[in-house]
Order: sequence, then structure tokens, then C-alpha cells
Amino acid sequence: MTSDLIESSLMPGQLLARGVSRHLRSHDFVSVEELVPSQGLRVDVMGLGPKGEIWIVECKSSRVDFQSDRKWQGYLEWCDRFFWAVDSDFPTELLPDDTGLILADAYDAEIIRVGPETRLAPARRRVMVQKFARHAAIRAQTARDPGFVHIY
Amino acid sequence: MTSDLIESSLMPGQLLARGVSRHLRSHDFVSVEELVPSQGLRVDVMGLGPKGEIWIVECKSSRVDFQSDRKWQGYLEWCDRFFWAVDSDFPTELLPDDTGLILADAYDAEIIRVGPETRLAPARRRVMVQKFARHAAIRAQTARDPGFVHIY
Repeated sequence: MTSDLIESSLMPGQLLARGVSRHLRSHDFVSVEELVPSQGLRVDVMGLGPKGEIWIVECKSSRVDFQSDRKWQGYLEWCDRFFWAVDSDFPTELLPDDTGLILADAYDAEIIRVGPETRLAPARRRVMVQKFARHAAIRAQTARDPGFVHIY
Repeated sequence: MTSDLIESSLMPGQLLARGVSRHLRSHDFVSVEELVPSQGLRVDVMGLGPKGEIWIVECKSSRVDFQSDRKWQGYLEWCDRFFWAVDSDFPTELLPDDTGLILADAYDAEIIRVGPETRLAPARRRVMVQKFARHAAIRAQTARDPGFVHIY
């Protein structure tokens, strides 16, 4: 698919996620989308930093999207830092002060506020980096070898 | 690219790597290709197991390809297990007995011999899983967002 085709197939939240992932690279973080840290949870963007830092970024395309989220506090225990990513029209006063804030569009993003750090215990960090690695590798393999998913 | 187009663009060693990566999934291992564990080294396939096991698989498409490899012993310190992957025409008697052996083609593979395990020290395993995660995530991001590589 060309870039344009990919873009038109993405939902508003996924476009924000793309901009966030691009921006995280400038902080030397790599990212995956839609990782499941634990049953019933699925994070929009999980970033992995050069020293094994784990960030979670939830992308909210509208007020309704944010207000209908009943799960976000469940993400806090799976990361060192938590951020919201919203576009420039979003009413940011709705967001809790003690969370991170990223202003994003489909092309890039900017970190406006870094929330508090609550460092993962070493054992959980190990598990999360391993989950991240497996998730990313399966996505990468699916991309380089579209035939493989049909086998196993 | 379609599967056929991808296939015709791959070198013989890369076709073996594809079959190896497919097969490793049946052992619940995920894989990346061409990871650099340390300057001057580039492994054909690195597998990551469900418990953080690290396997390295070097793919040899011919006798000459094997005999010109002066680096393979340098890979041993970066994995728990080391394997060769070759096709059914390869003279396997050339390969050292105390290494693993995988018979592969472009579509699948089979583990013929599992070599000795030399377990990585915990600190090195942590570094390798982290490297694996970053390598895989960058490949996956390049695939889902072809525009991103031109930015940073």
C-alpha cells in the first residue's frame, strides 16, 4: 500500500498513534501499537526507550473518546510513564493533571507535559520488554513474509 | 509487494531465513533477520523464545558460502544456542558436530540437531532482548508507516 492509501484507511486515533510513534523515535524510543499487557487491556502506543524505559500513550481523538474510557488507570501499572495524545482541538483541561500530555497529528507530535515516573519493578520490566519484543517481531515478520500467517 | 514478488527479490540465504523464521514460530519462537549483536557481526536469524531464550541461526546456501564464513564462532557468545540452516543439497558433513542443524527451504524448516546450550549471563540476555525488541519494532514501524523513515 502507498502512504496515501494507508493514511486513508486509518481511524483518527490510529493517525495520532502514527504521529506519536514518529515523534518517539526522536527521543530514541521505538514503539508498537495495540499491545496487550494483560487480558482485557490493549494500549494504543507502547514506547520502549534506550535504557528499557516503558511508556504507554493513549490516543484520544475526541472528548467522547476520552470520556468513554473506563480502563486507562489500569494501564498505569504496566509502564514507567503514562501519556495522553490528543490533537490541537481537544479540550485538554479534561485530562488529569498528573498524567503526561502529547499534542499529535498524523505526521508528528510534541511532548507538552511529562507526568510522574513510577518505575516498574525489574521482573515486570523484563516481562514487558519480552512482550514488546514478541509483539514487534510478529508484526515485522507478517510484513516481510505475508505468507507466514497462514501457516501457523 | 505480493508474496511472489517478495520471493523473487530474495537471495538464496534469505529464502532459507524465511523458512527458518516460519518454522521457529511453531516452537513459539519469534525471529528477526540481520540483527547486529555487536559491531562487525550481523546474524541471519535471531530467534527469541517464550522464556527469553536467544537462538542464532546462520543460513548457508552453498559450500562456498559456509567455507568463506570466518565469523561464525563470534556469534556463539551472543546466544544460548547456535544453529546452521542449510538446504537438502548441502554437504552437512562439513558442519561442526557440536552445532545445531536445521534443514530449510523457502517455505519451512526442520530442526535436525540441537547443539549444546551455553546460557547467556542475565545481564547480556537483558541487553539482547532489548536489542531484539528495538530491531523488530523499527522494522514493524517501517512496514506500517513507510513515511516515517524519511523524517528522523
